[in-house]
Amino acid sequence: MSLQAPKDMAAERDAAKFDIEKLAHYWAGGEERYKHLQRAFKFMASDPELVMQPPRNILDTTRPEIREFTMGQIHRYAKVLQDPLYKNDSDFKEALFQALAMYSESFSMRIGVHTALFKNVLNMLGSDAQREQWLDDIENFRVIGCFAMTELGHSSALRDIETRATYDMATDEFVIESPSITATKWWIGMAGKTATHTMVIAQTYINGKHYGHNWFVVQLRDRETGELMPNIVAGDIGAKVGRSGLDNGWIQFRNVRTPRTNMMSRWVSLSRQGEYTPAPSPVVMYATLIPERIMLTVNCVGMVTQALTIATRYGVVRRQGHKNEQIMDYLSHYGKLVPAVAFMYMTHSACMTVNEQFKVLTAGGDMDPMTYLNHVGDMHAISACFKGYVGWFGSDILETCRRCCGGHAYSAYNAIGSLIDDWGVLTTGGGDNVVMLQQTTRILLHRLEQKLDMDEYPELQFKSSTHYFTKAKEYVAWSNWTVTNVEDCLKDLTLVEDALHCILLNSISNELKTGSTHNDLLLDEARAAELHGAAYMFSDAVSKFGSVNHADPALDKGVAGIMHRLTALWGVHVLHTFSDQGYKEGVLSPAQIKAIEKLYLKLCKELRYQVVGLTDAFGYPDFVLKAPIGKYDGDIYEPYFETVLNAPSSTGKPPYHAKYIQPLTTQGGK
Amino acid sequence: MSLQAPKDMAAERDAAKFDIEKLAHYWAGGEERYKHLQRAFKFMASDPELVMQPPRNILDTTRPEIREFTMGQIHRYAKVLQDPLYKNDSDFKEALFQALAMYSESFSMRIGVHTALFKNVLNMLGSDAQREQWLDDIENFRVIGCFAMTELGHSSALRDIETRATYDMATDEFVIESPSITATKWWIGMAGKTATHTMVIAQTYINGKHYGHNWFVVQLRDRETGELMPNIVAGDIGAKVGRSGLDNGWIQFRNVRTPRTNMMSRWVSLSRQGEYTPAPSPVVMYATLIPERIMLTVNCVGMVTQALTIATRYGVVRRQGHKNEQIMDYLSHYGKLVPAVAFMYMTHSACMTVNEQFKVLTAGGDMDPMTYLNHVGDMHAISACFKGYVGWFGSDILETCRRCCGGHAYSAYNAIGSLIDDWGVLTTGGGDNVVMLQQTTRILLHRLEQKLDMDEYPELQFKSSTHYFTKAKEYVAWSNWTVTNVEDCLKDLTLVEDALHCILLNSISNELKTGSTHNDLLLDEARAAELHGAAYMFSDAVSKFGSVNHADPALDKGVAGIMHRLTALWGVHVLHTFSDQGYKEGVLSPAQIKAIEKLYLKLCKELRYQVVGLTDAFGYPDFVLKAPIGKYDGDIYEPYFETVLNAPSSTGKPPYHAKYIQPLTTQGGK
Repeated sequence: MSLQAPKDMAAERDAAKFDIEKLAHYWAGGEERYKHLQRAFKFMASDPELVMQPPRNILDTTRPEIREFTMGQIHRYAKVLQDPLYKNDSDFKEALFQALAMYSESFSMRIGVHTALFKNVLNMLGSDAQREQWLDDIENFRVIGCFAMTELGHSSALRDIETRATYDMATDEFVIESPSITATKWWIGMAGKTATHTMVIAQTYINGKHYGHNWFVVQLRDRETGELMPNIVAGDIGAKVGRSGLDNGWIQFRNVRTPRTNMMSRWVSLSRQGEYTPAPSPVVMYATLIPERIMLTVNCVGMVTQALTIATRYGVVRRQGHKNEQIMDYLSHYGKLVPAVAFMYMTHSACMTVNEQFKVLTAGGDMDPMTYLNHVGDMHAISACFKGYVGWFGSDILETCRRCCGGHAYSAYNAIGSLIDDWGVLTTGGGDNVVMLQQTTRILLHRLEQKLDMDEYPELQFKSSTHYFTKAKEYVAWSNWTVTNVEDCLKDLTLVEDALHCILLNSISNELKTGSTHNDLLLDEARAAELHGAAYMFSDAVSKFGSVNHADPALDKGVAGIMHRLTALWGVHVLHTFSDQGYKEGVLSPAQIKAIEKLYLKLCKELRYQVVGLTDAFGYPDFVLKAPIGKYDGDIYEPYFETVLNAPSSTGKPPYHAKYIQPLTTQGGK
Repeated sequence: MSLQAPKDMAAERDAAKFDIEKLAHYWAGGEERYKHLQRAFKFMASDPELVMQPPRNILDTTRPEIREFTMGQIHRYAKVLQDPLYKNDSDFKEALFQALAMYSESFSMRIGVHTALFKNVLNMLGSDAQREQWLDDIENFRVIGCFAMTELGHSSALRDIETRATYDMATDEFVIESPSITATKWWIGMAGKTATHTMVIAQTYINGKHYGHNWFVVQLRDRETGELMPNIVAGDIGAKVGRSGLDNGWIQFRNVRTPRTNMMSRWVSLSRQGEYTPAPSPVVMYATLIPERIMLTVNCVGMVTQALTIATRYGVVRRQGHKNEQIMDYLSHYGKLVPAVAFMYMTHSACMTVNEQFKVLTAGGDMDPMTYLNHVGDMHAISACFKGYVGWFGSDILETCRRCCGGHAYSAYNAIGSLIDDWGVLTTGGGDNVVMLQQTTRILLHRLEQKLDMDEYPELQFKSSTHYFTKAKEYVAWSNWTVTNVEDCLKDLTLVEDALHCILLNSISNELKTGSTHNDLLLDEARAAELHGAAYMFSDAVSKFGSVNHADPALDKGVAGIMHRLTALWGVHVLHTFSDQGYKEGVLSPAQIKAIEKLYLKLCKELRYQVVGLTDAFGYPDFVLKAPIGKYDGDIYEPYFETVLNAPSSTGKPPYHAKYIQPLTTQGGK
């Protein structure tokens, strides 16, 4: 077995019909970025402050240990940023950040609240003067920030937030107050023990009048002593399911005072005399939530690709069954793992597109409010359904990976358990997924109501995710999918697009007709949004890889070829997954559905021998994956056994032998 | 909010259309057993060796702490068994065992390997003399046993087990040997640090000839000193995803000697001279695996009902949304939780039936081999698909419960995280679920091939789970479901049974016709087995509760009424879930599917206000549930906050402030 496994692994790599390294370059965002990432991996691998060195195992630590280690990583990372050797090497600094985030979800989220949340709100909602005041301190960690939105009694419903900010004109300050226990800010990353400052969202009252939400910087701790500031009560939230290295915390504000100038004022302003000028639209105040959702989606991709790499590698070296097959040869393995891998390539590609679109729209915070307002609904729709759809499907895939590793995923040392535990926050945090998906569908319904009677749909400058709505009337009139030989789809992927759009538009137009409440349609609405997201990914990939000949000429031919095959598989997968909806709407017949299923399983089987190459290209070194059963070389059993032997007190008598065992086993018997 | 929540909870209880306590009696197996259970809960609640007392929190312990605490529970439990006060009170002793198993999954499995595995193999496969030799020591914990089946390289494939037992006639002993690293016994509960003996399965060699598997008792540790016996190498498996209180371990046998008389010999025998008499069928050697599967299914019910109780209670006291609704009022909540609760009642009832059947068949180990062989295939089919189906659907429900509690399920203190972690072993351990389901379908396929051409099917004395196969020809000929008004099903639940059996028999008879390999049909086969299990549960419930008037007269009218409604919902749920299979087979039309869905959602809605009563009846005290957000009285926020405050070092500066935080925040800036 031990000899066979590495041979099996090598044979899988040989079977790849593309250059694995070239695909790895593509995945990393180009050969240059790939090389910087490799440099970063090499740099950190032997650094004991960045990567836990054997025999210590980061998958087997106590809460105090991992909290300290994670803050140590940030400390060390901050020092590297300031090191003259790297200070001006922004490629390396970015790569190191990425590499560390891959290695530790606790690091990723601990530093994420500081940069992607705290700093990003300042960047997008703060005035130039405010940015000038704070940015340098933030970037150098003289100020360590957190993001206080969620409250104990209120999560996704911002409207119900209880924390109040009342303007006191006498002192030119806001008074921040938590009026009840349910108003306690809760889950706030880094608030538990670390953050010196927080960006808090609160209901704003000026001269007794309510002006909705605003964002305020409030100091939490003394930068010298680390003690809490007066009238701040805060603490650590204790044991969580995952990300134990992050000090999630709670905060109560007992009439804390913060200067008027600490209210974020890019879009709103408040004069010394209490004259309040609101934002052009309240929508701009939540602009940071869109990149947060994309960031969470990208985080999902990072975690799921690690689990897939582990499960795939184990699947090709584990042998079992009547003919001692590689377990990957079972349909229950490849039929689940292959489409999951395709999904990751699709999500990765679509997130790049959406990120690009968002950058165009916001111009790094300097966006034109009107352009932004015209298109933000569309960005909201696509980012929300990505977060929901990828979050849910990703959960399923992690569970699939767990089951594909059999009992060995139950060992903490094979990493999948900790990925699942760390994952938890992604499906409920950053906007509950049900709510996210429902919001997307409401936008779709609204768009459909607006446009169904239009003969033409004006070309948008901004590329809308609902572009296919221009053909809504046609699709709804169509009603059934006319393809009789489903294999034709492989020659023309737009046939699949047609089917998906036809199913979606029929189902939401039928929803409009029922006259039922949104609540009665809630599950249908969530599903429609999932289909919108899945279909968007497909269309995005069709435009990039749909025709091998017309793909980006900069793309390697082998890479273009495999991406084309993954795109085709993805389209058929989505069609298969939503075929029940198609049947209910009268779009698909049982014969078509059976043919789709057959084609789908055939495409999965054809890609069975590509899985190792495809997951290799995600580019994770063994020390990032951490799982002995997911080792690159396939030689898994001895290192796994060694990991177990390295565990604290893995052998010898337990300390409780004399107290609890011996008294039983030495009782006088018959 | 704090004031509203308990009122909301009380209103939910008032809305129950049945006597909650009477339903609790039914669930517990009768009023007497309910009362014994309450006695046991009361006994243990304040006992610091059985239940961790505040401010310590069993959901926030280190591995050494919880391993010791769990062995302490067993020690204390063993003492109670021997206490003159309780020695003869078998009702109480059984109730205490049950109650402790509800409180701790680690206790449940730690003691489970000793009794349900080690002792049960002795009982079912050991001779009278062997039982006489060992039973008293086992029952009094002078011998602490474990069960050595799984190996590092081999799990569900017993055929490939490498451990060897070679008979040495010279000394009248077997030599037990682990010939390679992959032969290491792995995951063996209690082998890590505790067990004095193990029941090991090994390939048997006598006079150079291979005689298949046998079971052997081998001593692992000295009962006095706790040291390993000569030639035994064993240790603890370290950190796992769940059940940290259990010392799963690994064992290597380096030519260990064990007497010939330690080979289990109820069905096989070996003379001093090496003459081997095999079992009447190899099947009897695996008889213990059937009750193990039922036990795991019952364990699933225990864990899922706890999560459902927590999610339900939180769902009725949490308010959110535009009208400040109870979140339970959202379809995304009740539409998922109500059928899950129904599923638990169905599984609970069906497991009782199957357990009863197994008892009839095995007569406590004294079974007649021929009767057993005639019917064991059927027991195997139903127990295997229960384990697979309940294990998978149960995973989904736990995930649903997690999401229904939003972010608060991410706190370790709300217990759902630990239920999910502890759960992991159930889907892959005790027989991988894919393999389990596939085995069921193979039996179904075999039965169908045998019987399809028979006009009559002889009435079995033993009630077969495939009784509906008698009508196989009829169902297959039928092909489409003739019901036009789906609501008629509520008056006659056998209409739903017909639809389910028709879908299943058509789909497996079509599988037979395709000529595809089992592997190409693997996913279909797994699904068919799930439908078989789900339909069996439904038929079992229809026979018990299908007609309120004809239900068991001993049953309270209100209980009979709610069980009838749950049965109806369950049938429609299964039909809805497998409707895609129905249209693919041409059994259901789009109109029927839409009508089924409508009826299904209506039934869920009608039971929305019964959920608190239904979950109350599971009978878990707050200290067993452990989750502040699942508190019986609905007053959740303050106890939750208090739990967090009780966590070690929840407030104050972190020990690493001077090392990692202060150096950053006090750097000289601009």
